[in-house]
Amino acid sequence: MSSKKYNMWLQYQPILNTTCKKHYQKMLTTLYVNGNAPTIQSAEQELTDAIFTMLGQRITSKSDMDHATIVIGNIEEISSLLSNDHIARLAEMNEEGYLVIENQGKIIISGNSDAAVLYGVHHLLRNMQLEQDLISLAVFEQPKNQFRMLNQWDNLNGSVERGYSGKSIFYQNGKIVKDKTRIKDYARYLSSVGINAISINNVNVWEEESYFITKKYLPEIREIADIFRAYGITLYLSINFASPMTIDGMSTADPLNQSVQNWWKDKIAEIYHYIPDFGGFIVKADSENRPGPFTYNRDHADGANMLAKAFEPYGGKVIWRCFVYNHLQDWRDRTTDRARAAYDHFKPLDGKFHENVILQIKNGPMDFQVREGVSPLIGAMPNTNQMIEFQVAQEYTGQQIDLCYLLPQWKQILQFDTYIKGAGTTIAEIVAGTIHTYKYSGIAAVSNIGGDDENWTGNTLAQANLYGYGRLIWNPDLSAEEIAQEWIVQTFGNKKEVSNTLGEMLLNSWEIYENYTAPLGVGWMVTPGVHYGPNIDGYEYSKWGGTYHFADRDGVGVDRTKETGTGFTTQYAEPNQNLYNDVSKCPDELLLFFHHVPYKYTLKNSKTIIQHIYDTHFKGFEQVEDLIKKWDSLADLIDEERFKNVQNRLKQQKNNAREWRDQINTYFYRKSGVADKQNRAIY
Amino acid sequence: MSSKKYNMWLQYQPILNTTCKKHYQKMLTTLYVNGNAPTIQSAEQELTDAIFTMLGQRITSKSDMDHATIVIGNIEEISSLLSNDHIARLAEMNEEGYLVIENQGKIIISGNSDAAVLYGVHHLLRNMQLEQDLISLAVFEQPKNQFRMLNQWDNLNGSVERGYSGKSIFYQNGKIVKDKTRIKDYARYLSSVGINAISINNVNVWEEESYFITKKYLPEIREIADIFRAYGITLYLSINFASPMTIDGMSTADPLNQSVQNWWKDKIAEIYHYIPDFGGFIVKADSENRPGPFTYNRDHADGANMLAKAFEPYGGKVIWRCFVYNHLQDWRDRTTDRARAAYDHFKPLDGKFHENVILQIKNGPMDFQVREGVSPLIGAMPNTNQMIEFQVAQEYTGQQIDLCYLLPQWKQILQFDTYIKGAGTTIAEIVAGTIHTYKYSGIAAVSNIGGDDENWTGNTLAQANLYGYGRLIWNPDLSAEEIAQEWIVQTFGNKKEVSNTLGEMLLNSWEIYENYTAPLGVGWMVTPGVHYGPNIDGYEYSKWGGTYHFADRDGVGVDRTKETGTGFTTQYAEPNQNLYNDVSKCPDELLLFFHHVPYKYTLKNSKTIIQHIYDTHFKGFEQVEDLIKKWDSLADLIDEERFKNVQNRLKQQKNNAREWRDQINTYFYRKSGVADKQNRAIY
Repeated sequence: MSSKKYNMWLQYQPILNTTCKKHYQKMLTTLYVNGNAPTIQSAEQELTDAIFTMLGQRITSKSDMDHATIVIGNIEEISSLLSNDHIARLAEMNEEGYLVIENQGKIIISGNSDAAVLYGVHHLLRNMQLEQDLISLAVFEQPKNQFRMLNQWDNLNGSVERGYSGKSIFYQNGKIVKDKTRIKDYARYLSSVGINAISINNVNVWEEESYFITKKYLPEIREIADIFRAYGITLYLSINFASPMTIDGMSTADPLNQSVQNWWKDKIAEIYHYIPDFGGFIVKADSENRPGPFTYNRDHADGANMLAKAFEPYGGKVIWRCFVYNHLQDWRDRTTDRARAAYDHFKPLDGKFHENVILQIKNGPMDFQVREGVSPLIGAMPNTNQMIEFQVAQEYTGQQIDLCYLLPQWKQILQFDTYIKGAGTTIAEIVAGTIHTYKYSGIAAVSNIGGDDENWTGNTLAQANLYGYGRLIWNPDLSAEEIAQEWIVQTFGNKKEVSNTLGEMLLNSWEIYENYTAPLGVGWMVTPGVHYGPNIDGYEYSKWGGTYHFADRDGVGVDRTKETGTGFTTQYAEPNQNLYNDVSKCPDELLLFFHHVPYKYTLKNSKTIIQHIYDTHFKGFEQVEDLIKKWDSLADLIDEERFKNVQNRLKQQKNNAREWRDQINTYFYRKSGVADKQNRAIY
Repeated sequence: MSSKKYNMWLQYQPILNTTCKKHYQKMLTTLYVNGNAPTIQSAEQELTDAIFTMLGQRITSKSDMDHATIVIGNIEEISSLLSNDHIARLAEMNEEGYLVIENQGKIIISGNSDAAVLYGVHHLLRNMQLEQDLISLAVFEQPKNQFRMLNQWDNLNGSVERGYSGKSIFYQNGKIVKDKTRIKDYARYLSSVGINAISINNVNVWEEESYFITKKYLPEIREIADIFRAYGITLYLSINFASPMTIDGMSTADPLNQSVQNWWKDKIAEIYHYIPDFGGFIVKADSENRPGPFTYNRDHADGANMLAKAFEPYGGKVIWRCFVYNHLQDWRDRTTDRARAAYDHFKPLDGKFHENVILQIKNGPMDFQVREGVSPLIGAMPNTNQMIEFQVAQEYTGQQIDLCYLLPQWKQILQFDTYIKGAGTTIAEIVAGTIHTYKYSGIAAVSNIGGDDENWTGNTLAQANLYGYGRLIWNPDLSAEEIAQEWIVQTFGNKKEVSNTLGEMLLNSWEIYENYTAPLGVGWMVTPGVHYGPNIDGYEYSKWGGTYHFADRDGVGVDRTKETGTGFTTQYAEPNQNLYNDVSKCPDELLLFFHHVPYKYTLKNSKTIIQHIYDTHFKGFEQVEDLIKKWDSLADLIDEERFKNVQNRLKQQKNNAREWRDQINTYFYRKSGVADKQNRAIY
């Protein structure tokens, strides 16, 4: 497959600026490649293909470095071309650091590893797509985060949990797909933004998927690992903690049981026989009905360490998810608070985990809501490796029907200062491992792609989230705007009007989505199970815990203060603890997440809660109408297929926004009895 | 299969009362059977089997009437045994009328048709199971209603729409079942309570079921028709109105199109070739996405009459459902009222339907809620045949988990006086055809049985609804209590404590269910789709229409008055119109169905609405606890299997009642702010 919608941000469209094109054509004529590792081969292929498409010329291979206009290769191979200063700067960088330099008409791309060279090639190609000057180029880049991972929530039956782009590209009808072209293409896109790890099956590991770690599936999984390896991406698998029972009928999966430990040792040895650079396991244990160590009165450290020890000889990792909470809560119980759960479960275990265990913690204490506080567990365990988990898939944020560019949210989270080790203890620094000097750390996210939609992401504009995720976690200093602009130009070409209009659309879209959905950080209010569309009381009397808003005729919100509430605020370090605990200080956008307040309470923005609800919901809907106008104005600048795809989604978004607006406004009007000051239609 | 739970009310348990047993043994020794029609053969089989089981003796066949102690046969065959008075009385009765008389030690069972004889045999057996005296027996019985029908909502894939007893007994995995023993047993049970018509597939006719009226399925459907025929039951099929298109790829299903009319003529001729006494079609058209005449700008009469004319040569009927409403309503639209829909659609068509069309009308204007008004369409079309539709399946009434004996509800509906032709125009008389002298009329109901549960109905006690449905529509003068007692003794044996305790449980169960669920006739408040368990706002912003309660901080209920509401009340004849329209007259139990009133409004029972809600919900839960105690007290009197089955369901009912109680009370407390006078726990 190759089409504009399929090619995402690697369009490699012909350069239209003629000056620029001539300049590139002149510079990029001959290529010398050092090494023949799969990643280097991928880099060469990408480079030659891209240059042919962009410049209309075939680059010729040279057999010596001196006469080539481009030289690529691992630092060990081509150091002779580099100055001592270059070599020194590369040496200061981590294994994935690269350089792209122009010197007297010759472009040199090198790095501390083969994969780094591939990243360097993509850097050059990105610059070209953005029509930037290559003269005197002197780029030295390394990723901020060690782990830059995607989690596929794909099931063997072909479905994708929380997938909004159709069926899996990995599995179909209970089998691994035979034709793996699309997996290879996916690997290309991921490597182009620096993703270096992937888990290829759902964290909810069902019966048949438990057998992924057996001979029944390993030969084919090896093929997938080979594909990803050629793009610098390490393969991981999600596993069923009770595998010894499910697979081999053992009577227990107790992590302290010797036979169980031996079983895992043998199992892991077997996996490495097939995949020598296998990454490790993702484990969702004792969470939402998944088995885990609790069954045997063991704790999470016992469970994770058993696996970690078995991985030791091979350098494999255990990524242990912290999404552990009581999902059978009685809504009548106002003392239990799901927001507290991850911290309460894991914080006491700090220092007990093996050094190749990494805890993976969702960005917020709840579950990928449009707005919630940052998880207080992140950074709170100085002696335990941690990763943060984002969700590129728009589960609670519009399901790739509604436009919601998530970069501003992720930026905000990464910039959040926890103060755990004083000012500057940001989430970005914690997960980069610079605060507590973790051995392993980084960022993971749930992927948003599928295979029914040729455009990968359902809504073409949702590609921006996948692109932006990779770019941001490579370099968290990039702004959401810079990333948006990079993505727009690569995806739709270099047209000012598209950049301006679409840039504005993307950057406002998270706020717009928030405006017409659950207000002021209270979260949920969505259709249970589906998680799309309004259902204000949908989770109000449910067993899922923490999903309650407690709206009554007087007020709304969840009291999480230490004095009268669940005490969740105490999980934050000062001054955040006080900031959130004190209703007069708490930021408006999180007020209802931390406090139960009267409808007539006045926000920092000088509006009452109730008037704020009305205003944002009327505004949110109008903003969607404006998004439609903006998009329509680009009709002549975007190919019809992608234009219609987005236009169609925006129409659906408008219906959704209308339902949200009217249901939220009606619900709170009926409860509060307070009229809208502007007397707009409430039902 | 044969077990206590499987045998339902035809246990034929040994008679324990020895006097009674000896008396029966002496009387029932020899049998003479006139005729050999399948129904007569069924009657003979039932009689000999039952007598063997109850009395432990084999009855011997006699070749002449004079020396037999029991004689059964069609009136035409055995009139010589009857007095002129007997013959005259039989002649006054309809085709299904029978007599059971004892004369000088000889018992004579006869009737105006073969099926009538089978009904007479069941009358005798019922008397025996109830241990009644047979001396001087002189029973003359005929059914009040001509059509006594059950609708199976079974799908070919084996599922049962709104089925709460497992999979279909008719279909499995896309095929008609090969082993039809269970269908035969079902026919036995139905004939024992006088059911004479059955439709064997879901009114929602899906793709493959459309082919039921083709050669692909007719040979096997004929076998099913043969089984039911032997028990006096006529077979009907639900059809897809668009069959000419679905089955034969025609471009239209327009009822006024000549080719379409010819297609149906040929099709119906083909069906009668297989099943010469085929009953006819059930049609759900232009309802909840089912195709119908509206597509072609035709009305329901056009659609029904086209089929009716094709049926004319064969005496077949068209049963046309009136469950037609806008299921894509905008909840913001307060003028459209689903309650009005059936009347608004059909009343103007009175007199336009062919004489072999019967309109089937749900008992209430909504959809089988625990409490709603009676449908004002019933009786409102003097020149159109009508049937009422009940639901034996407990869709909105506890799903055969919660105990809900529906006879009191059905009694109340049948006794409802519409005043359409003055006092005494009850629903019972209308559907019996005595008011407007319909050519065809009667009662249909959605069945409550399935095949996964050996006891047919999931909850053993739900068998009482199936039994009671048959008994009541045969003779609407029977009381709910009489029917309960008949059923209890036949099902569990003649034990005073069981009769008393279980009788009380059954008779109060509808009120109990209503107490803890949606209050005062407002309906719904259930989990969408599933229809079990509370979800107070579940249908409040839905597209289904009429499902709204409009609760706000001041009050609750639906204004259906003519002055300020939807005007639904005007569909009733006076004085009902005024009774419902005037809030001061409207019966408490329907108040919120007809009026929107403040929480502090005082009911006729002297309580405020809000206090009534609290009181009934606390009471309902306590009543369920009491049901459990009552049932537990019968532990030694009921076989363990059936005892445990019910005990287990009652436990589930208690959880359900608790959720309802707490969610309803909390919801209305949060909205109204009015405290419970007794200060009980509200969350």
